[in-house]
Amino acid sequence: MTSSRLLGCLGTTEEMAAVFSDAAVLAALLRFETSLARAQARLGVIPASAAAAIEQASEATEFDPAQIAREARASATVALPLVKALTARVAALDEAASRFVHWGATSQDAIDTAMSLLLQQARPVLERDHRRLEETLRRLSKEHAGTAMIGRTLLQPAVPITFGYKAAAWYGAVHRSWRRLSHSFEGAAILQFGGAAGTLASYGVQGPALAAELGKELDLAVPAAPWHAQRDRTAALAANCGIYTAVLGKIARDVSLLMQQEVGEAAEVGGQSSAMPHKRNPAGSVVALAAATRTPGLVASVLSSMVQEHERAAGGWQAEWPIIADVLQTTSSAVAATAEALEGLTVYPERMRANLKAYSDFAEDDLGAAEQFRNSLLEE
Amino acid sequence: MTSSRLLGCLGTTEEMAAVFSDAAVLAALLRFETSLARAQARLGVIPASAAAAIEQASEATEFDPAQIAREARASATVALPLVKALTARVAALDEAASRFVHWGATSQDAIDTAMSLLLQQARPVLERDHRRLEETLRRLSKEHAGTAMIGRTLLQPAVPITFGYKAAAWYGAVHRSWRRLSHSFEGAAILQFGGAAGTLASYGVQGPALAAELGKELDLAVPAAPWHAQRDRTAALAANCGIYTAVLGKIARDVSLLMQQEVGEAAEVGGQSSAMPHKRNPAGSVVALAAATRTPGLVASVLSSMVQEHERAAGGWQAEWPIIADVLQTTSSAVAATAEALEGLTVYPERMRANLKAYSDFAEDDLGAAEQFRNSLLEE
Amino acid sequence: MTSSRLLGCLGTTEEMAAVFSDAAVLAALLRFETSLARAQARLGVIPASAAAAIEQASEATEFDPAQIAREARASATVALPLVKALTARVAALDEAASRFVHWGATSQDAIDTAMSLLLQQARPVLERDHRRLEETLRRLSKEHAGTAMIGRTLLQPAVPITFGYKAAAWYGAVHRSWRRLSHSFEGAAILQFGGAAGTLASYGVQGPALAAELGKELDLAVPAAPWHAQRDRTAALAANCGIYTAVLGKIARDVSLLMQQEVGEAAEVGGQSSAMPHKRNPAGSVVALAAATRTPGLVASVLSSMVQEHERAAGGWQAEWPIIADVLQTTSSAVAATAEALEGLTVYPERMRANLKAYSDFAEDDLGAAEQFRNSLLEE
Amino acid sequence: MTSSRLLGCLGTTEEMAAVFSDAAVLAALLRFETSLARAQARLGVIPASAAAAIEQASEATEFDPAQIAREARASATVALPLVKALTARVAALDEAASRFVHWGATSQDAIDTAMSLLLQQARPVLERDHRRLEETLRRLSKEHAGTAMIGRTLLQPAVPITFGYKAAAWYGAVHRSWRRLSHSFEGAAILQFGGAAGTLASYGVQGPALAAELGKELDLAVPAAPWHAQRDRTAALAANCGIYTAVLGKIARDVSLLMQQEVGEAAEVGGQSSAMPHKRNPAGSVVALAAATRTPGLVASVLSSMVQEHERAAGGWQAEWPIIADVLQTTSSAVAATAEALEGLTVYPERMRANLKAYSDFAEDDLGAAEQFRNSLLEE
Repeated sequence: MTSSRLLGCLGTTEEMAAVFSDAAVLAALLRFETSLARAQARLGVIPASAAAAIEQASEATEFDPAQIAREARASATVALPLVKALTARVAALDEAASRFVHWGATSQDAIDTAMSLLLQQARPVLERDHRRLEETLRRLSKEHAGTAMIGRTLLQPAVPITFGYKAAAWYGAVHRSWRRLSHSFEGAAILQFGGAAGTLASYGVQGPALAAELGKELDLAVPAAPWHAQRDRTAALAANCGIYTAVLGKIARDVSLLMQQEVGEAAEVGGQSSAMPHKRNPAGSVVALAAATRTPGLVASVLSSMVQEHERAAGGWQAEWPIIADVLQTTSSAVAATAEALEGLTVYPERMRANLKAYSDFAEDDLGAAEQFRNSLLEE
Repeated sequence: MTSSRLLGCLGTTEEMAAVFSDAAVLAALLRFETSLARAQARLGVIPASAAAAIEQASEATEFDPAQIAREARASATVALPLVKALTARVAALDEAASRFVHWGATSQDAIDTAMSLLLQQARPVLERDHRRLEETLRRLSKEHAGTAMIGRTLLQPAVPITFGYKAAAWYGAVHRSWRRLSHSFEGAAILQFGGAAGTLASYGVQGPALAAELGKELDLAVPAAPWHAQRDRTAALAANCGIYTAVLGKIARDVSLLMQQEVGEAAEVGGQSSAMPHKRNPAGSVVALAAATRTPGLVASVLSSMVQEHERAAGGWQAEWPIIADVLQTTSSAVAATAEALEGLTVYPERMRANLKAYSDFAEDDLGAAEQFRNSLLEE
Repeated sequence: MTSSRLLGCLGTTEEMAAVFSDAAVLAALLRFETSLARAQARLGVIPASAAAAIEQASEATEFDPAQIAREARASATVALPLVKALTARVAALDEAASRFVHWGATSQDAIDTAMSLLLQQARPVLERDHRRLEETLRRLSKEHAGTAMIGRTLLQPAVPITFGYKAAAWYGAVHRSWRRLSHSFEGAAILQFGGAAGTLASYGVQGPALAAELGKELDLAVPAAPWHAQRDRTAALAANCGIYTAVLGKIARDVSLLMQQEVGEAAEVGGQSSAMPHKRNPAGSVVALAAATRTPGLVASVLSSMVQEHERAAGGWQAEWPIIADVLQTTSSAVAATAEALEGLTVYPERMRANLKAYSDFAEDDLGAAEQFRNSLLEE
Repeated sequence: MTSSRLLGCLGTTEEMAAVFSDAAVLAALLRFETSLARAQARLGVIPASAAAAIEQASEATEFDPAQIAREARASATVALPLVKALTARVAALDEAASRFVHWGATSQDAIDTAMSLLLQQARPVLERDHRRLEETLRRLSKEHAGTAMIGRTLLQPAVPITFGYKAAAWYGAVHRSWRRLSHSFEGAAILQFGGAAGTLASYGVQGPALAAELGKELDLAVPAAPWHAQRDRTAALAANCGIYTAVLGKIARDVSLLMQQEVGEAAEVGGQSSAMPHKRNPAGSVVALAAATRTPGLVASVLSSMVQEHERAAGGWQAEWPIIADVLQTTSSAVAATAEALEGLTVYPERMRANLKAYSDFAEDDLGAAEQFRNSLLEE
């Protein structure tokens, strides 16, 4: 919610902040409006000239996000002042066309669909960093298949493992969690188009055909029906972001613990300290841990927002999208930081061996099935 | 956490409370120990006579849950005092056998696996009520395919819908959310078997074979590797319970709103009031709404608990299972209450028609694509 | 919610579980009913003979909590079946008296007031362990006023502090948080008495006088008005439990980190491991950390439950009390475990000194204002 | 976290967004640095000329928030790149002075103190809208002391109340919750000044005197000791924001329910709908309900973030401030919207009377102690 980059800088990435920026939100909303007009013109619902005027008027740079945001509070929806502004611009071009702006749609159609378009943009940003992270974890796991270290339970030394197995366990959780998250994107990034109460009443029986056309126009899947008050797909996306981020938090916790001077088994390239310039900090892990601290509450808020009234909700829905934008930015920040931290991770096999000897009675080769499990995890 | 049935009665069902009762937890823990011994004997890891003694000693009724619970605080694990008590009983039967109790396993192996066994018991309980609910929603949707009513947005009258379409939208969300939840059960109800640090070190290379044998014994899937500190699967189960319950909360919110005397479009058979015996209350909806209020926080706690240290955690894991037991009981309570409330739901088509006329300018047959969407949702 | 002591054992104490047990809840509910009757008889609202019969019939052991819990689901309130059972018992003694049972009260009056009575019992249990903890922290702080150790930031060695100062910082947070929590108990443990819609309509203008009398009878403060749907005081209690528990979680995190073998600066007497009997685990810290993992979600649920409809709510209120019972039990478990862990804490000043030298360039006496701050904190 | 005004517009106010804007954060950070230099110069810790150069170089408009935010990720703190940039500017003015920038302080000193300064700015913004709301609630309560309406429990008609009593109950909760919140501001908006590990080691015994001087300079209270890893005061602020917002959410829920056409007892001036321009929506209530949906999760995140490691944390602290900024903005949005909605609320006494007659058997004057309770609440 905060507009401050200084306060929010650890909780987003520049790329993901751009995906959810005013410019991007505005462009997505206008894309909905112009695509709707185009699809409607194609099916003869509105005149082709109206669609052309709407398209012409929809130059994102001509709209003032601050002004629209200000006016939005009066109606509790950002779509209304935008549609008003767009209508005025269309009217200036073609008075007759102006009544066809947003024709038959409801505010939530525009906003939910715009968000689906943004989700489609968010996904490859996450995926790219996820792939980097997977690659790095596989590499670390392979390189250190034979690097024995002490396994630790309840923060106490237990029996030997290998660092390669540890990295494979991280990989397994990252891999599974991405699969779930990726699947959720497919479910959530879909067309919303239902009109006032989800019946597309303005179009009579033509509604579903128009929805199909609009879906093609926007390259969005068309669900069985509008989902104005049924938010399970969005919630699944948020929850899977939360799980994925928590998995990264676990890695970060481990790295920050290994990086303690007293342990000294691994180190991030690390961040500086303003009070102690010589010190190396687990800066990437800190970012991921901060993200993992933040996301559970965001997921809870999304789940709470699901109890929505009737055909379109009073409060629940309006709470949802800013939280989703936060969830995705936080997730993005975590995966970028973790990928970078692990790419630059220095592992100290000798210190691992020394600690293993110092703090355990077990021999370095009491590794049980570590190698088998490591292989199975990488093949998952 | 509360042991009071009086305080907790709206948040569980008798059946699901039984699944997570002391008796059931104890039985599942002992089933792990005896199955482990049996599998080990079969592979020659321990003597067959030891397995027999362990089996004989594992009579659940011989253990005192209160005593075990009391002792558990000292070690922060319930498995330790149980294993101690079991060992004592085995020793009384066969001194030599006693050293093979829980052989090579760790506390968390016993507890996680026991919980997987309980999840397997929980699933059909939920599924049965879910099926009842799905059936009821399909029936309501079909019966009221032609029952026009006002659609409501932001709690204001909007345009006409049908009650059949409304019920189909409920159905769609319930159906999708169960599919996710059901899938999560498969992921989560799996064998845990890793020994002290996930390497099954006590068994050397025989570990994975023993894991496979134990999985067969318990009828549990065997994952690629132990998952002591990788809790994404459990978290996915909790999150999908949260989503499913929130979907039920949305239905309950709608029903409780329709049931307002001023609206009067539907009614639960309903509960009585102690102050006003003539009054009918939305008792089932209240139970579901209470559940939907509770679950988001539980899911948040599970997500927070995922940031676990190294090979086995100090605090995160220990927080998890009681929350999962709460999540499942809350979900169970919500689905049972919703199924029952909707089975007994009285719908008032005439009042719906009257409200439609009174509060909207739209004709009863301005239904757009309601019927098409209704059909698509039921076919999903 | 779970009725299993085995699952819940780390999340409560025997004493606090007893405070929220069926027996205690039942006794508190019956105490409300009998006190109400007594106060009403004294003001001439009901006959003295009716009050006597009600008192005589209110023998807690005569009621079956399981049966009452079972019946409660139908009305979404436990008070209704209890009042019914009590009425039947009164009728058996004195038919005429039976109509005066629960006279003019509503279910929520009984339940909220019963919970206030339980809160009054919960408070000294918490307070006693809190006092133990404060004493221990003061003692540790004083004993180790001169024990230099390395201060650690972002899990890296920074500059010297003393263990006495560290303990004083723990003390300060515990002390302040208890003060807030203690204050919340006073706000929350109050009479609820409003009748059906908070007007005490059954008593006409006599209502407030009767409330005052009932308050005296129960030794509960009487608020300005009933608070059926205004739950800020209860929420403040939950939130302050959450803060207090998180403060304990921070101490536990520190102790568990100091207790790492590689650090070795302190140790709990500690718990055993089932896989590695020689190992010492931070068992008390684990219990406190598990509590601190759990409470934030519980607090979130309480806050969510506050958005309650009109004069008495449909769902929000019904969610609240089981969560409050969980919050208090979790808090109780955390403070008992922390007090015990710190009472038995072994501190290793030589290892602290060695680590200070090994991991920092700073001299042992670069302690700045540590001692001044330590003193100020203990005087707060 | 989102930088989009369009997405975040319902979750903040322009005024509160300004309090937490980049410009304000930057100004507060620089105010810390210049005040520190000034206080140090006054106590002879650094040369007066250095303080003068630092002051001269600290022109907020000369710093690029985007650049600082970008660099912050590498060190996981925004203070480091800011101090670097400031140092460069000082060096350009006075090479010798540049080593005295941020002298002896740590990043967290600057950021926590800057946040305290922002909290001091946030408080009057909230307070002004809170006062408006209190005034309006008192006015409504007095105007409608005699306006009978039906009390509703579990969303069903119960017995009569007055709208004046209902408004007084809202008032009571708002009043108590503000008192708690206001008190928390005093606790939380305090100086942070401890140096690397909370000992102010760079200043020897002069530390506390310097802290006192700095507190005066910034008009901030000076606590007993630094609180880098003890976050109970900040958490109390967040929790009390959460409670206050939930109280507003309850009012908004009631208003939105009263505003249903079928109930028709009150109406906001209300927002328009893009699909149905004739419709009046509960726009203010929607904003407050969205806020109340969001805050519980934010509070949970703050509580989770409290479990911080040792003297300064790795992740927990870094998660905190952006959440606090969100909490305050959400709270601000809710109170502004509620104040405005209630100032413009139309109450329909005749409809209230009609519903009372239609849906209840009770006479309009069965008001019990409603008036006494109303008076007591306004006097609280």
